[in-house]
Amino acid sequence: MAGALPRPVARLIDELGRLPGIGPKTASRLAFHLLRVANEQALALSDALRELAEGVVYCQRCYNIAERSPCAICDDPARDAALVCVVEEPLDVLAIERTGEYRGLYHVLHGAISPVDGIGPTDLRIQELLERLGGGIREIILATNPSLEGDATAMYIERSIRARQRGDAAGAELGQPPLRLTRLARGLPMGGDIEYADEVTLARAVEGRSEIG
Amino acid sequence: MAGALPRPVARLIDELGRLPGIGPKTASRLAFHLLRVANEQALALSDALRELAEGVVYCQRCYNIAERSPCAICDDPARDAALVCVVEEPLDVLAIERTGEYRGLYHVLHGAISPVDGIGPTDLRIQELLERLGGGIREIILATNPSLEGDATAMYIERSIRARQRGDAAGAELGQPPLRLTRLARGLPMGGDIEYADEVTLARAVEGRSEIG
Repeated sequence: MAGALPRPVARLIDELGRLPGIGPKTASRLAFHLLRVANEQALALSDALRELAEGVVYCQRCYNIAERSPCAICDDPARDAALVCVVEEPLDVLAIERTGEYRGLYHVLHGAISPVDGIGPTDLRIQELLERLGGGIREIILATNPSLEGDATAMYIERSIRARQRGDAAGAELGQPPLRLTRLARGLPMGGDIEYADEVTLARAVEGRSEIG
Repeated sequence: MAGALPRPVARLIDELGRLPGIGPKTASRLAFHLLRVANEQALALSDALRELAEGVVYCQRCYNIAERSPCAICDDPARDAALVCVVEEPLDVLAIERTGEYRGLYHVLHGAISPVDGIGPTDLRIQELLERLGGGIREIILATNPSLEGDATAMYIERSIRARQRGDAAGAELGQPPLRLTRLARGLPMGGDIEYADEVTLARAVEGRSEIG
């Protein structure tokens, strides 16, 4: 058709429009922006996407995104393999790594249980976590988000682990060390203002208060 | 660094963040979305970008985006080559084509004069338009946007064309047909409501009123 957009432009608008939060208007604005700027930018983005599709794998131990499996964290002999921090998303790993305080390993669930969104326990890497148990792990930190979904996921994992432990204990009296299950502390965020804290956060902060002096 | 994002992910976030209106947060959300969905989507987007960079050219006559030069519109013998509609952007061509009412050719300026944004006449395809004059063109429709920038651009083009015509007339008394310069009508949009029309639109609608009956 004479008056139509060139096929490559129409196709790009189409593909961009499939991204979340990008409607047809934004997609066409982005496509025309890429047309206007130098071709190098479109090609660089194209290469980056190809590299993402071809160069990123899931670590078959912790299921974090990585360039190889096992990932650099799982493969690091300096880290404490007896400690596993369970998080929802790869970005959570990044956030915890940025603290520089944690020297254990991770387990990435890739989501949280959310019946509203149709996400159940089998959609997450929970079974894979249970299979890691017993391999010398002494503590599991359930670092899911402080949200309804995160809490439900943590509770589900706790029960699954306890059920498994009871099964193991019934089967054979193994001389394994006791497994600690912990959660991240709830309370006031640094720089926060008590006056503006929501009541749940404040209630948790009171509940989790610690001795001073 | 052990706790960093895999290089391909970091690179993609970087490239996405260079797009207009996409900040680092949105870029990382998009990158992680692409990681989660099937690789095919990232690869399809990658291919679409490459095709855009390699498969889209500017028609060397009307400067519209096209798959080849001259474009399908310029190359269509059924269209009236004596009529040229001057627009700011390729999307304007598309909009006018959708009316199905116009059978002439186009000239795409790729912007409008806007001193605030540092866009002057030489940044637009105005010289190229002047060079098309004389080739049997009888009417030029200045279809720039009804905005300050669009009006300034139309006025600049009008003056440039008139100056050029005077120069031609001084040089040689050519037996060329007179060149009409027209503008799109201003007035109330269809489905609009007089009560809610802004005063400039309403003033133009009164100014451009036509006889009935």
